[in-house]
Amino acid sequence: MSRVRVHNLSVSLDGYATGEGQSLDAPFGHAGTRLLDWFLRTRAFRDVHGESGGETGVDDAIARAWGPGIGAEIMGRNKFGPQRGPWENHEWTGWWGAEPPFRTPVFVLTHHPRPSLEMEGGTTFHFIDASPHEALRRAREAAGGLDVRIGGGPSTVREFLAADLIDHLHVAIVPIVLGRGERLWDGCEGLEERFRTESVTTPGGVTHMIFSRP
Amino acid sequence: MSRVRVHNLSVSLDGYATGEGQSLDAPFGHAGTRLLDWFLRTRAFRDVHGESGGETGVDDAIARAWGPGIGAEIMGRNKFGPQRGPWENHEWTGWWGAEPPFRTPVFVLTHHPRPSLEMEGGTTFHFIDASPHEALRRAREAAGGLDVRIGGGPSTVREFLAADLIDHLHVAIVPIVLGRGERLWDGCEGLEERFRTESVTTPGGVTHMIFSRP
Repeated sequence: MSRVRVHNLSVSLDGYATGEGQSLDAPFGHAGTRLLDWFLRTRAFRDVHGESGGETGVDDAIARAWGPGIGAEIMGRNKFGPQRGPWENHEWTGWWGAEPPFRTPVFVLTHHPRPSLEMEGGTTFHFIDASPHEALRRAREAAGGLDVRIGGGPSTVREFLAADLIDHLHVAIVPIVLGRGERLWDGCEGLEERFRTESVTTPGGVTHMIFSRP
Repeated sequence: MSRVRVHNLSVSLDGYATGEGQSLDAPFGHAGTRLLDWFLRTRAFRDVHGESGGETGVDDAIARAWGPGIGAEIMGRNKFGPQRGPWENHEWTGWWGAEPPFRTPVFVLTHHPRPSLEMEGGTTFHFIDASPHEALRRAREAAGGLDVRIGGGPSTVREFLAADLIDHLHVAIVPIVLGRGERLWDGCEGLEERFRTESVTTPGGVTHMIFSRP
C-alpha cells in the first residue's frame, strides 16, 4: 500500500506552522521566511527551483526526502494562494510560476472548485471539494501506486492526522517564537502514541522530528 | 552581577509545561510524569533526592547544571502546591517532604502570604506577594552574590521573561502532544531576538534548548 507522507513542515517553538496575515506578498504572513530559512539554504530546495549551489549537510539530506516515491500531492487552498471564498477569476495559478516544482498531479482542497490547471513540467492542479478520505482515494488513483504527499498547510495536515491517514510526518522545529498564526498541534493530543518518533538537531539549530507508523 | 537562570523546564511539542487538572495526586495534572521522565531517569535527579543509580549521559549532564552557583530560588505558588486562594491552614509544606532539594532560601510568589517555613537541609520557604522585580531584589539579597533560579511553573517563568529578567533559560522539548494545560510560550513572541540559542537532541528523544544572553 502506498504511504501518505508529510515533509519539511516547519513549526515554531510555540507550534505555529505559518504566521498571521497571509497575503500576496507574504505567503507565510508575519513569519516571513523565518520558518523556511533552513530549507531555502539547502541544495534540495535550489535544485527543485532550477538554481545552483546550496548547502549539502544534514538539513539538505532530510529535506531531499520530499521528492522520491511521490506520485501525487494534496494541498489546502491556502497553500495554493491567498484568496478566500469564491474565485474572482482564474488568473491565479499558484505561487510557483509557470513550472511548479511538484511534477505530479496536485489536488487542491477547496469549497470552490474550478477547472484543472495543467502547468509546465508535469504538475496539474485539480480543485476538489472532498473529505480527507475521498481526496486521498483520488490522489492514490492518480499516483499510480506511488506515495501521496500531504503538502500542507497546517490545517490540512491536521485534518489528515485527525482522520489517521498519515504514515510519515517530518516536522522541522525552528527555534523561534512566532506568537501568532496557525497552529499545527491543535487537536493532536496523544499523537505520539500512534507513531514511532525520532529527532535530530542539526548544526543550524533546527530540530527535525520524524513520526512514522510503528 | 548574579545571573537569573531557569533549568530543566520541560515542555511538550505544543508548548505546554504542565497538564490540566493539577491536584494533590497529580502535580502536573493529566501530563502525569510524561514531561519529566527524561529527568527522573538521570543520576542528577536521583542524587538530589538521596537515591542511588540513574543514567549518566547527556541528559544527566544538562540536568545537573540546575544546582551549582544558585543562592536562592523563586517559584510560583502552583509549583509549591495545588491549593488556590487563601490558605485553609498551614499544614502543607510543599511536595518535597521534610528535606526539600533546594537547600537555599526559596521565595514563593503568592497573593496570600504566610509565615516562613524553615525546612531541613537548608531550604527556607518565604511567601511573598511581589512583582518580578521586587521578588528578584529580595532573592538576590538572600543569594549572597550567587545566581537566582526561577523554578517555575510556566506562568512564573513567563512573567520573568516578560519583564526581561532572565539570563539563561534551559527548556527540554519532550516529543509528546499534551493538548491541554499551561503554555510556556504565550506572550513570548520574538523571544529568540533577545538570546543566543543552542539545541541538542539526546538519544532519549528530548531536545534541550538553551537560551542565553548574547
